[in-house]
Parts: sequence; C-alpha cells; structure tokens
Amino acid sequence: MNGAESLVQTLTDQGVDICFANPGTSEMHFLKALENPRMRSVLCLFEGVCTGAADGYYRMKETPASTLLHLGPGLANGLANIHNAKRASSGMVNIVGEHSAAHLKYDPPLTSDIEGLARPLSHWVRRVESPRAVAWDVATAVSKASEHVGQIATLILPGDTSWQEAGEQVAPPSTVAAAAKIPDVARIEHIAQVLRSGEPALMVLAGHSTRGRALELAGKIKAATGCRIATQFFSARIERGAGRVTLERIPYAVGQAVEYLNSFKHIITVETTEPIAFFSYPDKPSLLKSPGTGVHALVEMGEDSAAGLDMLVQALGATNTAGVLQQRSDATPPTGALGPASIAQALAAALPENCILVDESLTTGRETMGLTVGAAPHDLINNMGGSIGYGTPVATGAALACPDRRVFCMVGDGSAMYTIQSLWTQAREGLNITTIIFANNSYAILKAEYANMGAGAPGARALAMIDIDRPRIDWLAMAKSMGVPAVAVDTAEAFHKAMADSVHEPGPCLIEVRL
Amino acid sequence: MNGAESLVQTLTDQGVDICFANPGTSEMHFLKALENPRMRSVLCLFEGVCTGAADGYYRMKETPASTLLHLGPGLANGLANIHNAKRASSGMVNIVGEHSAAHLKYDPPLTSDIEGLARPLSHWVRRVESPRAVAWDVATAVSKASEHVGQIATLILPGDTSWQEAGEQVAPPSTVAAAAKIPDVARIEHIAQVLRSGEPALMVLAGHSTRGRALELAGKIKAATGCRIATQFFSARIERGAGRVTLERIPYAVGQAVEYLNSFKHIITVETTEPIAFFSYPDKPSLLKSPGTGVHALVEMGEDSAAGLDMLVQALGATNTAGVLQQRSDATPPTGALGPASIAQALAAALPENCILVDESLTTGRETMGLTVGAAPHDLINNMGGSIGYGTPVATGAALACPDRRVFCMVGDGSAMYTIQSLWTQAREGLNITTIIFANNSYAILKAEYANMGAGAPGARALAMIDIDRPRIDWLAMAKSMGVPAVAVDTAEAFHKAMADSVHEPGPCLIEVRL
Repeated sequence: MNGAESLVQTLTDQGVDICFANPGTSEMHFLKALENPRMRSVLCLFEGVCTGAADGYYRMKETPASTLLHLGPGLANGLANIHNAKRASSGMVNIVGEHSAAHLKYDPPLTSDIEGLARPLSHWVRRVESPRAVAWDVATAVSKASEHVGQIATLILPGDTSWQEAGEQVAPPSTVAAAAKIPDVARIEHIAQVLRSGEPALMVLAGHSTRGRALELAGKIKAATGCRIATQFFSARIERGAGRVTLERIPYAVGQAVEYLNSFKHIITVETTEPIAFFSYPDKPSLLKSPGTGVHALVEMGEDSAAGLDMLVQALGATNTAGVLQQRSDATPPTGALGPASIAQALAAALPENCILVDESLTTGRETMGLTVGAAPHDLINNMGGSIGYGTPVATGAALACPDRRVFCMVGDGSAMYTIQSLWTQAREGLNITTIIFANNSYAILKAEYANMGAGAPGARALAMIDIDRPRIDWLAMAKSMGVPAVAVDTAEAFHKAMADSVHEPGPCLIEVRL
Repeated sequence: MNGAESLVQTLTDQGVDICFANPGTSEMHFLKALENPRMRSVLCLFEGVCTGAADGYYRMKETPASTLLHLGPGLANGLANIHNAKRASSGMVNIVGEHSAAHLKYDPPLTSDIEGLARPLSHWVRRVESPRAVAWDVATAVSKASEHVGQIATLILPGDTSWQEAGEQVAPPSTVAAAAKIPDVARIEHIAQVLRSGEPALMVLAGHSTRGRALELAGKIKAATGCRIATQFFSARIERGAGRVTLERIPYAVGQAVEYLNSFKHIITVETTEPIAFFSYPDKPSLLKSPGTGVHALVEMGEDSAAGLDMLVQALGATNTAGVLQQRSDATPPTGALGPASIAQALAAALPENCILVDESLTTGRETMGLTVGAAPHDLINNMGGSIGYGTPVATGAALACPDRRVFCMVGDGSAMYTIQSLWTQAREGLNITTIIFANNSYAILKAEYANMGAGAPGARALAMIDIDRPRIDWLAMAKSMGVPAVAVDTAEAFHKAMADSVHEPGPCLIEVRL
C-alpha cells in the first residue's frame, strides 16, 4: 500500500467517504487510490466549487467531507469558500497536493508557500513528512475537522509521500471528537433570573441551537417567559416552516437592526456574539444594541446548546410548557407581477416538505425570505462568511449529503457568476437542485450600500461597476452550456409553476427569474 | 479630497491608469473615486479575471495595472493568477478593501488575516494606517510594482482610510524604478571563452531577453559561435515568427528534455535558471541537464539582458555578424481533418501580423505550437506559474494594453472553465480577442501524466476525474450566455476560416475546435 492508498483508506475508515476533487499532475497517485469503491469522488471544474460543496455537505450531514486540491494555487482558488465554511463552523479535510521534497528545492513554477496560504483560514495545517505518517496525519485531520465546532483541517501531501510504500501504518489516534462542554450552572441561574425579571429580553440563537431539540427548548423558554427569540441575519442552518418554532431575524441594515434591538433590555446569546454590523460605515455604529442593553452568554461556542437550553428550561420550571408552533401560510399560488411578496408567496406555496433552501439572493431575498416562514418545514442555509459565490457550491454539497431531499438554491445573478461551474457538477451527478437566479442585471446590493456609505448616488462610472447589464447574462444559454435544463419566468404564476415542476423531475434545473 | 480620491489620483499620477475591479461594500468610496476620468475601470465578474488581466496588461505594456479586490476572500479568489503573474515577473498593484480599524475588533464575518493571505504571493504588502498616508503608500506600491523585475505590490485599504479626509498629502517618494544592473565583465569574458571553445552550448533566454534588441543580439551570438539558443518550455513573452530570430523550445516531458539537453556541454542562462522538471515523478530527475554539463549564468534576474548580450557580442567580435531570421512558412490554408499539424498550419496561415497569441492549450498546443514558428510575426505568451485558468484573463488584459492588435487565446476546455467569466468582460469592453477552445472533453494532459507517474492506465474511477465529457460543455451556449459570438469547427478549413473571419470583425469571438 502506498501513501495515497493509505490516505484514502484512512479517510474512509474514519467515515470521510466523499471527496470533492480538482486534481493535477502531482495528485495522480491519489487519483489512482480513489479507485477505492468506499470513496465517492466528485469532480469539480473549479476549486471554489470543491470547498463550497464540502461546506454544504457538512451543513446537512454534520460530518466532514474531503477536498482534493492541486498545490498552492489550487488551495488558493478554494480559500474564499473555506473562509465561508470556517465562519459557518463547517468541518472539512483539505488534501493539498505538493511537489515531492526532493523537487521543491529547485523552486519549480508551481511552488508556493502552501502552509502560508493555508494558515489564515485553517484551524489545523500539517505537511505529511513521510508515507509512514499518512494514516496518523489523516486520522488527526479528520478528528480536528469533526470537533463539536467543525474545523478546517488542511493536510499537505508531497508527491513522494503519496507514491512511496507506506509500510506498516502506525495506529492512528482515536478520532472521537471532543464532546461539547456543558454550560456552567451559575450562568444558567443568572440568565433564568434575567428572564424572570420580566424585562424585555431577546435570545439570539446560532450554531447547533437553531434546529432540533434546542429549537424546541427555545420555544418553551419563549412561551414561559415572554422573551423573544431570534437569529443573527445569517445562520449556518435553521429548521423553519410550518409546525416549527419560528425565530425572528435581526435585520441586516444597521438602522433597522438598531431600531429592532432598541426595545430589549437584555440580549442572551447562544453560540454567537452580540449583534454587530456586517460592514463599517462612516456614521454608523458597529455594535447594534442600545447602550443600556446587557449582554449575557448562555451558551458559548463549543458548548452544548441543547444541554444549556435544557438546564434553563428546568431552572425556569418550563419543562411542560408548550412552544408556539408556526402556522402553515396560505399555499395559494400567486399570480401577476413578480415582486418581493409574490416571490415569497410562490416560494411558500411551491417548497416541498423537507426541502433545503440555500439562500444567496442578497437584495431580492432580503425582502422576501421573512415572508416564507409559513412554508412547509424546510432547512434554510445562509452565507456565514460573506464571500460571494457560496450558494451554488453549497447547494451541490447539500444535495449530495441528502439525495432524497430537493435543494432550492436562491442566488442573485452577480453572486452566481463567481462559482457558476457548480452547474456542471450538478448535471454530472444528477443532483436534485433547483437553482433560482434572481436576474436584476446588477450588483443591486451595492446601490444601497453606496448610499449607506454616504457616497450619495453613484455617477456614471461608479454605476458601470455596479450594473452588470452590458451584456445581460443569458441564463438559459449558461445552464444549457453545462447540461442543466432551464426556464425563464417573468410572472409569479410562471415562477411557481417552474418550481413545482422541478420537484417532479429528478436532476438539476435552473429558473431565471427576470426582474 | 478623501483617501480614496487621493488613491486614484496618485495611481494615475504615477502612470497606473487602469483598474480591474470587483468591488464590494467596503470599496464604495473607491468606486466613487473611480469617477476620475483619467482612470479606466474594467469590471470583472470574478477576481481571478482581475488579477490575470493585470498580468496580461503588464506582459504587453511593461507597466503595472491595478486591481480592486474585496477584503481577504476577494484577494484569495485572485491569488492563483497573482501566483502566475509573480512567476512571470509581471508587476501589479492590488488594492484590497478592508473593514475600518474600529470595526475590525468585532471580528465581523468578512474578517480574515489579509496580510497573511497576501504575503506568500506578494513581494510587498502594506496596510494603509491613515488617510494622510495614502499617497505615500500608493506611490511606494507603484514603485515596487514597476521595478525592472515586476513585483506584486498589495496595499490593504481600510474603509476609514478611504472615506476620511486625506488632508495635505506628503510628497510621495520618487517612483523611478531601480535601473537594471549591468552584468559583471568577468562573467561575460568567461562565457565568451566557453563559446569560443567550440564545445556544444545552449543559451537559454527568458525575461526581457526573448524579444527586441536582446533577441537580435542572441541571433548574432548564435551565428558567430554556432551555439544554439532556446527558451524554457514556458516564457513570459516571446517575439517570434517570420523575420525574427527563432528560439528553440526545451521540451516539457522529462524524457524528451533530458534527451534534448544531452548533447550540450554548456548551458548559458539569461534571466533564468538551468532547466528543471515542471513536476516531480517517482523515477525521473528534477534537473534535466546531463551530469557533465556546465551551467553558466550570463545574466541574472534583475540584470539588463540587452546590456549583457551586447557585451558578449562585443567580446566575441560579432557586432557585424547577422543573425539568421525565420522564413515565412507556407501560408496555404489546410484542409481536412483537425490534428496537431493541420491546426498549426491553420494558425500559421491565419494569424495576422503583429497579433498576440496567448497559449494555455496544454495537450493540443504542446504538439502544435512548434509548427507555427513561421507564422507572421507575433507575440507569444505562456503560463509561467502553472496555475490553470490564466489564459482568458491574460488575453483580456493584453487586449486592453494593445487595442490595435488582435489577441488569439488558445485554451483547452478544462483550462477555460476555471476563469470563464473573462468572456463577459471581453464582450462588455468590446475587446479584439479570438478565443480558441480546444474541446477534447478531457483534462487530457492528466492521462499522460498518470502514465508518467508510473500509475499505469487509469481505472474507471480515476478516468471519471479526468474526462469532462459527462456532460459535454456546450461552448456555443457558453459564449452566447456572456454575449460573445461563437462558431464550432471540425475541419481544418473551417478552423482557418473562422480565425481569418475573426480578424475582420471587431470585438470578441469564440471558436470551438471539436477534437
């Protein structure tokens, strides 16, 4: 067994059985090792698709995927979506091919400081020093990636460690990820006291707390105390829709967020920080709460949300309190012009039960998403790192993690273009993804941000850097080029029909929503 | 004047009058400052297009362009083509937007270690500390980028330094780039002696020496001494074609290169190192020369090639020797099936005088390019860093640098997909670029490399990571999606006609060569 074979075997032994790959010459032995039938290899035509797909896979499966990247530049192409994954606490194992040690000293063209490139966005970086170390290093990488708060583990694999005989492999360390810590009892007592005071309080949920049992417990706390419960504007994954406890959403715009938070005397955080502005603006605050508002951490990152919320429910004596569950909204398909409300109504009517909604729709989604809360129960995924181009790759990974669930990927036209190569992988793998392109032919969000920055109305030259309407992107042709069936719609009924149709047709499709 | 306005004014004062931009919220004041009519702003839909275009611009213009990138992830998306530019000694000034200092401490989602990401692939990195420092810092960045061996200068621009009043700007340092050093006389004498010995010698030219006066001088040395003159397999830019001194090309494949170099007793290097293998392979050497071959540096990086070659010509008494100039090859358009020879013949017949040829055709080009040496005189540009996806962005920048010259961009289908967003910028700017896609529906180079690695013939699963034929990319639809007219060809005569037609039609077009 050579190093590459040991690598793939160790990955699969440790439960990592999917690899999003964009290989090059230095990874040919890895490619050969991928003949191992326990590993599913998914080819991506750009590395940002690999890393974004690994993020999406983790979001739904809560176990890491692996990526195969070609030296420093291959890693570099994947970094933006590694950034997004890191901010979403998604674990992943990146395998970065590298020249063999003997070759590196000649500084061949593809040489770069891979550790230097990896470190700013990885929690853990290691270079395999010998084929005998492969199993140990890979198992350690998987263990890191699998921690309660998922970690970015990047393993650099020189060619010689890949092709040389691995020999007897040292027993890898246990990969049982460290269990989440239980929050401190005194803290729970303090927050129970805050909530019993009756002063207006907002509990902000993130991480693992926006779904499953933790979400139910939050619903009980709300019902028992009258506090409100919300998420930050962006969440890694929320279970929402009819029959679930509904979380409010702190607005994105600084002015609206400040106003929203103004009425609370207390903010209680669960796996997150107090609300902060996404960007800095000349005359706007970074901290969004009112000066007199107290911030109390109930569950810190790395702690067990469900345990903390359970302790709080018990402290409040709310074990038998029932949370209020979301009503199903009117599911009548809308007709007429497309606008935020009719788009939301169409979505709420068309989304099938248990679907996955990946949202990178920026301007359009900002006005729309809140109105879809009464749709059939679904998972909602947001961009946590703010680097554009996360949507279509994350949808790709989510669909591979959950082959029985349809994924709806809502994405602005500008955002879709960063990593549009995802469509090809979706077609190749026959993934059940409905990509919805909101085609406003503009980086529309920047028009608002230009004003928010106090820069006034953009002049002709600035506008030319914001509008992407010359030429207009032909989305039907784009989808066709990569083998994805597509339709364009310009009414609410056509939009609804296209989405409903897509549910019944296996494989990917694309809907261009002409705004 | 605020910091952003000072920045744009300083850039243009220092001669940097083009900006390849992909802006975000933190760069809105920069966008406003781009209203300055002396700056040409070119919008790109992905950052790898921005940095690749800056590389292409420098290759033809020999002065740096600027890029506008959005925080760490925006820089990250541009890094692979920064790597390629760095290896090509192309100077560029990257402006990376950043949160304002007061906001950074809250670790908002888009925060990352920008210096950490920039350093591995930049020669110079600086964070603007105050709006008053903008002019000084920008002028320093331009000066660094403009050195004789172009440098990657990366300037991080926090929001507050952009929007705050810049006040009186400190006079920037002189931006006169350090002049190239003159090679040492003793070294010249030594090499003259080597050449006079009559022992077989190969002079390997790179950097500034593959064009203009330096190339003519190399022709004289060859004629006077019988040495041979060549380039590495990849060159940043070569002037070649009919009427010019022709340089041989050291083969890419290790076995062929070793055999090629075997007959030389001396290798004389000009702005390059002795030939090394691009990749490491289990049973192949990294150094390609024969053990007994001596290596002599005539001109080191950073030194003046033309001066060094001139000194050598004088030392050899060859001032009046005439170099042999390339004959024009038969310009009869070929007919029949497409293959390496007919593709080369079609290219040689169709390329107009003074065109620019950007080559990222890998497999197809490797067999073809040598046969085009008798085409009309043209510039040839190669990928120096080996990170795939350099071709279409570099072509974009080259066309903006030389609006009167047509650019032919030869690119493999796999390579084209990394940065395919270039087509949109080409359409938007009406650039005279003929993109030639060699569509073999495969990362064909990897099939050979799989065998070179001693991995044998790929199995089904490995092949599935190499072939990109499921689905086949529809290149006509891809071009249409971004507003570029396209045609597909499957005969030599149709290929020739499509290229010839493209010369007469302003703006971009795409030719899919079906292999």
